[in-house]
Order: sequence, then C-alpha cells, then structure tokens
Amino acid sequence: MTDASPPKHVTIANRDVPEGVSASAEISLEELQLSQRNHGMHLEALRYDVTPLGMHYVLIHFDVPDTDEANWTLSVGGRVRNPLALTMAEIRARPSVTMPVTMECAGNGRARLTPRPISQPWLTEAVGTAEWTGTPLRPILEEAGLQDDAIELVFTGADRGVQKEIEHDYERSLSVADAMRDEVLLVYGINGQPLTPQHGSPLRLLVPGWYGMASVKWLTRITATTEPFEGFQMESYRFRQEADEEGTPVTRIHPRSLMIPPGIPDFLTRRRFVDVGRHRLRGRAWSGWAAIHGVEVSTDGGASWADADLGDPRSPYAWVPWTFDWDADAPVETELCSRATDAAGNTQPLDPPWNLGGFANTSVQRISVEVRRATAE
Amino acid sequence: MTDASPPKHVTIANRDVPEGVSASAEISLEELQLSQRNHGMHLEALRYDVTPLGMHYVLIHFDVPDTDEANWTLSVGGRVRNPLALTMAEIRARPSVTMPVTMECAGNGRARLTPRPISQPWLTEAVGTAEWTGTPLRPILEEAGLQDDAIELVFTGADRGVQKEIEHDYERSLSVADAMRDEVLLVYGINGQPLTPQHGSPLRLLVPGWYGMASVKWLTRITATTEPFEGFQMESYRFRQEADEEGTPVTRIHPRSLMIPPGIPDFLTRRRFVDVGRHRLRGRAWSGWAAIHGVEVSTDGGASWADADLGDPRSPYAWVPWTFDWDADAPVETELCSRATDAAGNTQPLDPPWNLGGFANTSVQRISVEVRRATAE
Repeated sequence: MTDASPPKHVTIANRDVPEGVSASAEISLEELQLSQRNHGMHLEALRYDVTPLGMHYVLIHFDVPDTDEANWTLSVGGRVRNPLALTMAEIRARPSVTMPVTMECAGNGRARLTPRPISQPWLTEAVGTAEWTGTPLRPILEEAGLQDDAIELVFTGADRGVQKEIEHDYERSLSVADAMRDEVLLVYGINGQPLTPQHGSPLRLLVPGWYGMASVKWLTRITATTEPFEGFQMESYRFRQEADEEGTPVTRIHPRSLMIPPGIPDFLTRRRFVDVGRHRLRGRAWSGWAAIHGVEVSTDGGASWADADLGDPRSPYAWVPWTFDWDADAPVETELCSRATDAAGNTQPLDPPWNLGGFANTSVQRISVEVRRATAE
Repeated sequence: MTDASPPKHVTIANRDVPEGVSASAEISLEELQLSQRNHGMHLEALRYDVTPLGMHYVLIHFDVPDTDEANWTLSVGGRVRNPLALTMAEIRARPSVTMPVTMECAGNGRARLTPRPISQPWLTEAVGTAEWTGTPLRPILEEAGLQDDAIELVFTGADRGVQKEIEHDYERSLSVADAMRDEVLLVYGINGQPLTPQHGSPLRLLVPGWYGMASVKWLTRITATTEPFEGFQMESYRFRQEADEEGTPVTRIHPRSLMIPPGIPDFLTRRRFVDVGRHRLRGRAWSGWAAIHGVEVSTDGGASWADADLGDPRSPYAWVPWTFDWDADAPVETELCSRATDAAGNTQPLDPPWNLGGFANTSVQRISVEVRRATAE
C-alpha cells in the first residue's frame, strides 16, 4: 500500500458532448454487445471472501486468444543484460505465492455518468477477489539484469485488435520501481486451479492495488525500455476532461464499498423487497491507495450516515468485509448506500465524478428497497 | 433426441407495441443491469468442445442463493408412495453419469427483435456446453413410487423473487414421461469439479435438449402432482403473439449454428478484420429436436450458401463442430453467416421470428468482416 492519493477530478452536470460520449440515457447495441462478453460480479457474491470462478468480473478488450501452455514462452528482453525465454514449466518451477487480491475495472461505474463515455457500459459490478497463484516478478527481472538506463517495463499480451482505428497488441507499461514491488506476480493459477482462458491462461501479470488494465493477460513478452511507453492502452487510460488534454494516468484503485442487496429482487428492475424487522446488511470495501479506514452506511438515501463494523481482509490487497445492523421498523421506500474511506483520506463522492474515459466513477451505490410487512406464507 | 418439430411462429415487421415490449432500438438501464449479471459465452469459446468455467452463459432470474451443501436436502413428495429426503452425500453415493450437454437460454436472440421484448437482452451468445456430472433422476422417482394419478413433477429452486408483481420461488414442471427420460439428471458437478454457485450449487436439474429454463437450479424439492402446474415460470415461457393468447410452451432447443468470428476485432463494434487469403471458418451447431443434419455457410451475407463439413459431437446432447474453407481472394466488406438444419427438417430463418416473450430467435448470426491486404509488420 502507498499513502498517496488519487488524482482529483470534477463533477460536471451539463456539458457539451464530445466525440465518443453519448447524451442518451439508453445504451446502444454496440455497448450491449460488449456487456454480453464483459460481465460483472453478481452483487450477492460479495458474501464470499474469494469470488467463485465465473462470478469474478471479466473485461477483455479484443478476443480471448487461443493459447497453448505447452508451447508458451515468456520472453524478457530490451534493455537487459541476459535476455530470457521462460517456458511455463520453468515459471511453475520457481517459488510460488498464493494471495487473495481484489481487482476492479477502471471503467466500473461508467454507465452511471451523464453524458456517458461510450465503451464497456459498467454499472457497479466490475470487481472480484480471486486467490491468485504465481511467482514474483522481481527475481525474474533481476536475473535478466536491467540495464542502468531502463526506466520502464512493457508487458505485451497475445490479444490483438483495433481500437479507435489503431491496430495493436494489448500492451501496458510499469515503471521499474512499480514492476519491482514485492506483490507484483506472474500468475498461472486462480482459486486453486490453472488460470482459465478468460483470465489470461496460461500466464498473466498481476499488479495488486491497481485497476485491472495494468494486469496484462496472456503475457508473452516483457521489454525493458529507456523511454516512457506511449502505446494505445497507456494513452487511453488517462483522466481527462477534454480529448486534447494530456491528463493523468489511471493507476491505483479508488476506494469503493458495495453492499449485498438485501431481501429479494424484482427480476427486471432489481428493486428489493425486505420485510419489516432487523436486517444485518453486509458488504465489502477496498482501496488501492491505502487500507480501508472506515465504511459508513446510509439507510435513508444518503441523508444520514452511521459507521459499519469492519472485519479483517484476507490479505493487504483484498477487500474488507463490513456489517451494519439496520432496524427497518416500518414500511417505507428508501435507498441503501455505503461509503468507504481509506487511511489516506480518500473517500467516495455522492455525485459521479466525470471524465472523458469514464474511469473511477466511485460515486456511492444506491439500492432501492421497499420495506414491507412480512408476508405470511 | 426426438423427431418432433418446434411450434411454428411468424415474422412481424410492423406491429403495435404491446406492454413489456420496447420500440426503441436502444437498451434501457434496467435491461443493461440484467446484462451485467447474465452473461453470454465469448464467441471465440466455440473453439472448445467443453466451455471453460466462467465462459458458459448464465441466466439467473433472482439472486444466487446462499446455499450450504452440508445441510442441503432434496425432498421428493406429493403424489408418491415413499416420500424421500436425500442429503447431498446420499445423492453423490448414487450411480454417477458425466455427459457433455449444450445448454442455451430460451431468450437467446431476444435483443435482435423489433420491437424488443423487455427482459434479459440477449444477442446471440447465451449458450455453452458443460461436462455435467450427476445421477439419473428416474431411479429416484422410482424409489419414491409415483402414484398412478401423478401426471407431472414440479421442481422447486431455492431462488425467490418477484416477476411481473408475482412473488414466487423459481419452479418449473415436467410431464412424468419427460422427467423419466434416461438423460435427465440431478447434477452436482461441472467440468470435473463441484457445481459452482451461479450454475446451481449444490444441486440442479439437467434436462438435455431443452432450453435452460427447464434445468432448475438450487433444487430443493420435487413434487408429484395430479394437475398441470401453472406457476409463473410455466406461464411465462410460452410462444405467444398477444398477451391474452394461450400460446404453446417453450420446450426443446431450436437448431442454431454460431461461428467463431475470424480475424481480429474492433474493440467497440466487434467488426472483424481478416487478411486476404484462405481462412478455415469454424463453428458449432446444435438442436434439441433432432441430430444436426447439415450446416451451410454464406460468405456474402446470405446471398449464396455452401455446405460446411461436420465433425462428431461429444454426446447426443452436445453441439456438433463444423468447418468451412473460405477463399477471401480480394479486399471486400461482407457478412459471414451460418445456418443449421436438423434431421427433423427444422432450420434457422433469415429473419427473426417474433413472439411476445422474445423466445427462440434463431435467425442466422451475421458477422461483419472487412477483408484487407495483409498488413506488413
């Protein structure tokens, strides 16, 4: 963890609609198409410390490549003294670490923005905590021997496609300092089994605490460079208000809390029905900037807040469980909210913070609930 | 398999828009919300005989219930001579069967209809083939001893919610004859491991050849009845043109073929880029009414068709692989399509067949492709 804070950004109510942004409250078929492939976590899965396979969020820019573990090679090259070509058997033979890590998509919350940046239209569910197994990256970089003038490592995936008319392999870089952090892993296992295709099989990078775009899947190559890498996926993941602005990079995960929707749902609206009585509300909170310091709950749509009880996370990079006892005394229609604050003082806004890419909209989740007299059965 | 045919339904271009149907080409936030939970299969996963965990489609009406295998009991009651209460240990101790079965959501294709029935807005990906492990249902029903006047079995899941203002447990029935079929299983395993929560852990029904709504998840109770069951999920899954029509029940899976989109995608549009040259197109086809008899491919948007080569399915209830060699001689923009026909003569329409629930829209998939000169790199 670090004690730094995320870049600040502003809330914009009415603005001109730039290219790549929709003023419509409705979703296009193209966005829907992405949303059928890239799924969120069922919010009731917040009950699990470790998200079951298939319930963890998935965001895939292009296609899941057709990989073959037996013939997979990770090359480590560029500004290194000893270029490496590691087979999966060699990577698996190295020291292994298993760690629960909460991962979130940088675009989580995008579809709650007005106007809405056109991309994968996430609401609030693009998160999950997997128990990842892999080997630390740093010893591999030390074996390769970075040259003194190397300042970044570029990580290249096997997935290739076109985005905004630019054809490219999915590639992201980290500074040498970030890549050398203890917790950065090359991962080949998830939840006690081999990594699955949609999560990057046979090998992916894992950068705990950072939004998911940093954890390059289907990793084929690591290249040490003397210049900052300016590939598409670096330019794309930046906080900007205007297209021609330099902006600031999207890096660590901003604090967020989500609640398990209580009671039972309406199929279509997902509105909840809860019987009059005491309910133990439960959820999870996380931040990539610092440890979670507190979670507040509102049972009146944000008018008043009270502290939830925090549990212990399974690792420094995993979400923190929380509970809150709610006395729902009488029939009412209300909204339930929760709000996380981390030890660096970062917290969730009530109103969506707007940016052109639709990143890090951590405005509080709102769950519509109807409290009703218990139905006899 | 059976040699029967699905109910016929008609294509409607312009019609009044009834309740529960949207004339908008765009998707509401409520539909989007469902689409973040209920995900399709990545079409490139058609490359796998058995869909990897987490890539198989999922449709959950309400919430994934918080189940506990250690305390789970399946009760078998109603019009039986010997009511049963089976623990999971007792069910696992019974003879086991492992079988690859292709499952599809009855609403697959719904979001391609105009006007669009409002529900989970599937495009074409609501399918998957899992290797299910379970025990045959018939011997359990025989042990329970159906009374002579029992005509149906009602299967009750642990998931509960409200749909169209009616609160209910998810429940579906089968006729005694259908429930007694050899291939009907009580399933506790998927792809060689314990059933996962989103697929019905610890126990679900599996009705091979039928759309997924029949395969009740989180199965708690089987009740033999003397009357046809008319619960919400039976009334809902019917082919109807008008709300007040009796309609016909949705049962078996209509034939469909899907193709792995070739080349590389554009991120947002999913349009494909393919280099000039010979390409081996691949896909899968399936039908619940009869074996797949043929698959035709069109590389000119449906103007002309030619036969694909069929492979062998992994089981009578699993999809059939097919291949087709396409000579993409020159740069062109085109659409690729495939069309399956089963041995009972059922085939896929070119235009979407409309019905009020948006069920079984098996109109052919269309993949937009740009054939281009190979890019030097």
